[in-house]
Amino acid sequence: MRIPEHIGIIPDGNRRWALKNGLSKEEGYKEGLKPGLELFKLCEKVGIKELTYYGFTVDNTKRPRTQRLAFTQACVEAVKMLAKENASLLVVGNTDSEMFPKPLIPFTIKRQVFGNGGIKVNFLVNYGWQWDLKDYFIPDEKSPNLTQLIKSRNISRVDLIIRWGGRRRLSGFPPLQTVYADFYVIDDYWPDFKQEHFYHALDWYDKQDITLGG
Amino acid sequence: MRIPEHIGIIPDGNRRWALKNGLSKEEGYKEGLKPGLELFKLCEKVGIKELTYYGFTVDNTKRPRTQRLAFTQACVEAVKMLAKENASLLVVGNTDSEMFPKPLIPFTIKRQVFGNGGIKVNFLVNYGWQWDLKDYFIPDEKSPNLTQLIKSRNISRVDLIIRWGGRRRLSGFPPLQTVYADFYVIDDYWPDFKQEHFYHALDWYDKQDITLGG
Repeated sequence: MRIPEHIGIIPDGNRRWALKNGLSKEEGYKEGLKPGLELFKLCEKVGIKELTYYGFTVDNTKRPRTQRLAFTQACVEAVKMLAKENASLLVVGNTDSEMFPKPLIPFTIKRQVFGNGGIKVNFLVNYGWQWDLKDYFIPDEKSPNLTQLIKSRNISRVDLIIRWGGRRRLSGFPPLQTVYADFYVIDDYWPDFKQEHFYHALDWYDKQDITLGG
Repeated sequence: MRIPEHIGIIPDGNRRWALKNGLSKEEGYKEGLKPGLELFKLCEKVGIKELTYYGFTVDNTKRPRTQRLAFTQACVEAVKMLAKENASLLVVGNTDSEMFPKPLIPFTIKRQVFGNGGIKVNFLVNYGWQWDLKDYFIPDEKSPNLTQLIKSRNISRVDLIIRWGGRRRLSGFPPLQTVYADFYVIDDYWPDFKQEHFYHALDWYDKQDITLGG
């Protein structure tokens, strides 16, 4: 079976899950932590090399304050959980903004190794595609050519994106790494994560031909 | 009914259609012309304002020569067909390359008006996302800030992408315009285009909430 090297995760549907379960919208976010860890462990098991989680984007921060605080807190908690696993973590996002959670700044500077390193995990926190591409090509002092310097340059090309919550869109997921990515959508909300979701996505991916645009 | 302003079209599956019908791969491309015109007329009817067709990309030109000549020829024919309609056409792609069909160069310089203008049509011909974004931000002589100058700057944000042929990927479709686009996939091959495909896509789009990442 052909396994993707790099999976992107869009864990959507937390608010709709909360409403469905009689909670207020912001209460949905913390329900996404356990599925995040469960998915991480499945990726370990099948040998995924790199994993990029959509935490929140600059666009998302326009939501009501209670929601913003709740999803920001969930991101901080997610990093604490991951720190107990085997992983190399890089947080990618705009740290110059008030919206960036300060406790996560150290993880943006260089990839932090937890345990024996294990899977590369990229975590998008206050990520913005405009921010990412601001210096896409800048003049290099040493040569007259231009140098590619996207902010997310340590995130490699994504093979497979899995999105929960039924929406069929990228919602600002890093655009250059996903130019050729295969896109699998699960209708269930992210807090209703099941192992089968992941295995179905892998089965589907195994049947795709990979051409990288060719 | 909420109608998208701008639809992106990925007319995939021509080669698979040809094989299924006992033809050689390159014979599939010309079968895509009639559906292209039919779809254009449906868009006119429902009031779509802008339409971006995926012709071929720089990546696609790595395919065998017979295929490359066939899809290039189909693009030239498509423009001839469109010239008999009401449309404002802009061809977007890398004209500095040998792979770009010379007869289409005049359409890359400014939007050409056919008939009464009608729908804005963008046609991606030898389009490459790296080429598009090469000058994404360049220093502006008049100000110390950087100016956004993507090559496809006359293509607006895409609301809905419809892809035929079952693949769930963008395959190098302009990445910045599709950051928030909704993505609808039809399993039938493009030469098997049916009006219902289009109407189903519109029905589905009508049910999506549009948040632009918010």
